[in-house]
Amino acid sequence: MKVKLDKALLSISKLNKKSMDECQTHLDSLTKPPGSLGRLEDIALQIAGISGKARPSINHKVVLVMAGDHKVVEEGVSAYPSEVTVQMVYNFLQGGAAINVLANHIGSKVLVADVGIAEDVSHPDLIKRNVKRGSNNIAKGPAMTREEAIRAIEVGIDLAITQIENNVKEGICVLATGEMGIGNTTPSSAILSAFSGLDPEEIVGPGTGLISDKIKYKAEIVQKALDINEPDPSDGLDVLKKVGGLEIAALTGCILGAAASKMPIVIDGLISSAAALVASKLSPESVNYMIASHVSAEPGHTHMLNILGLSPMLHMNMCLGEGTGAVLAMGLIEASTKILSQMATFSDAGVSTSIE
Amino acid sequence: MKVKLDKALLSISKLNKKSMDECQTHLDSLTKPPGSLGRLEDIALQIAGISGKARPSINHKVVLVMAGDHKVVEEGVSAYPSEVTVQMVYNFLQGGAAINVLANHIGSKVLVADVGIAEDVSHPDLIKRNVKRGSNNIAKGPAMTREEAIRAIEVGIDLAITQIENNVKEGICVLATGEMGIGNTTPSSAILSAFSGLDPEEIVGPGTGLISDKIKYKAEIVQKALDINEPDPSDGLDVLKKVGGLEIAALTGCILGAAASKMPIVIDGLISSAAALVASKLSPESVNYMIASHVSAEPGHTHMLNILGLSPMLHMNMCLGEGTGAVLAMGLIEASTKILSQMATFSDAGVSTSIE
Repeated sequence: MKVKLDKALLSISKLNKKSMDECQTHLDSLTKPPGSLGRLEDIALQIAGISGKARPSINHKVVLVMAGDHKVVEEGVSAYPSEVTVQMVYNFLQGGAAINVLANHIGSKVLVADVGIAEDVSHPDLIKRNVKRGSNNIAKGPAMTREEAIRAIEVGIDLAITQIENNVKEGICVLATGEMGIGNTTPSSAILSAFSGLDPEEIVGPGTGLISDKIKYKAEIVQKALDINEPDPSDGLDVLKKVGGLEIAALTGCILGAAASKMPIVIDGLISSAAALVASKLSPESVNYMIASHVSAEPGHTHMLNILGLSPMLHMNMCLGEGTGAVLAMGLIEASTKILSQMATFSDAGVSTSIE
Repeated sequence: MKVKLDKALLSISKLNKKSMDECQTHLDSLTKPPGSLGRLEDIALQIAGISGKARPSINHKVVLVMAGDHKVVEEGVSAYPSEVTVQMVYNFLQGGAAINVLANHIGSKVLVADVGIAEDVSHPDLIKRNVKRGSNNIAKGPAMTREEAIRAIEVGIDLAITQIENNVKEGICVLATGEMGIGNTTPSSAILSAFSGLDPEEIVGPGTGLISDKIKYKAEIVQKALDINEPDPSDGLDVLKKVGGLEIAALTGCILGAAASKMPIVIDGLISSAAALVASKLSPESVNYMIASHVSAEPGHTHMLNILGLSPMLHMNMCLGEGTGAVLAMGLIEASTKILSQMATFSDAGVSTSIE
């Protein structure tokens, strides 16, 4: 029933220490004080460890945008109606959304998949992998069955692995997580609360623009979802199927698929990080394949990054989702690998090293 | 004696409110919740205000790398010998330094100017505007005369204005500040301390890699420079000439030149921000033309950004200087303007607006 998931989990291994050591030696030979490029050096090292290449170079970038609806929207937790999921999916496919503009800017492909949209959507560029027409209302019961959760995760695994296999012979494919799903900050907050025990009132935010007296109400809905479903924090799949969502499950799969294929995956905001929390429960080692991008304006996001032990590069006060923060970070990640291949060494350039 | 400086100061005006209002209206018509792109929207608005164009578009990017030496290095405040200034300048001119790699990555030109290098440097691509062969040892007296400070500022004004005039007919030229000068975190810390009254021990950091017991000694040298020179915090030029440096003065000029020409300028780390503090004293309005890039690992930098009221986008733990943080931010700044020109509106895309 979950052959692909089990296979992916078994394929996720520790980072390659030897290539990281070689990468570190090379970094320290470059014309700059050791460590002075900070996070750029950390990321170069991490990608060396992920890929097993001491001087990795990026030759493919793709953001995987998973789309799904959430029947919890009927509780009034979102500032936008559910139809906007489909409307925005068409906008992505026509190239008019923020994710298209930002992905083009840094040279990334945008792939859009229907994993759980409520209506049938037709477009030649849409990847049709609908598992179910919308996640159930988590304020009334589980979002999906365990079997549906596994199927949605496996959609993500498939998409990640296919992108990597089809596009990368040599070099590195950097994947990024993106999503579209009106209402999906509610299950994401519930996932965080389920794993961390944090009070929903501390972590729930305005999502796409809820006014402040509705935020308290949204926190109550999150609490209700937790009370009714009683997710087991020691079981990632249980949390996901009870208070998660279909596109969140697919993102968990994208992360596991990237890690299983030894490729880095950039984590966007609140929803992507909720998926990353689930991935970290299913495979603690998968966290080493994640690169945090930005810290979102949503209050729960900082808690998620802290739990994952990830440090965001971008403080942009963004809260759009779609993968917008992740693609901005992709440009920085690519810069980190160019440092490895394009900078002169102290001996090449005839520059003196430290006098200390 | 300071015709160019006075002319630049007189040319710096308030931001254009009308183009900012038009830009805001356009931003709110785009397919995203209002404000959800956070700092990207803030920057788009700021550039609209700077340029007087409601939908500005960037067509030239250049980082101005000002180089100079500091005789305070003889006190033992740096982990690298002074010769490294010249060696790194050659490295910049040969394209092998971090600033070259990162500038190429985002499509920015790199210009290198000798404003205060201790030796004569010859290279066809070097801009030779040496004011003096190294700033004096600030632990023993003023870094330079008031007249030299003005000349160095005017070099920066010239370079900024020339870049803008030669490269931009239509559209926006984004400038960034960069520098090279072994020892220059010491005068930068002294400038911060002079303006803020903060104790040097609170703000002095390792620079390019000083070991920790030498940092305390470096703070003592900064204190000595302040005690001997008694800079007047109400007089920007007095602080600059007494405890500053030639390349810092030139960077102040670059900032004022950009502001006088109604173009945005991206501020790099500690040294660039010290120059920005001086610029803000000479022209408080000039701060509206500055865009902060990253927050450096040097402890003083956060204080500088707070005083300027600027919010950094990048938290990369970098401390290399050269303009490396600023060029990374240039890529984000360009993205902010692409949002304005490339995103679909709600009505174009047939997307429903908020139900609240």
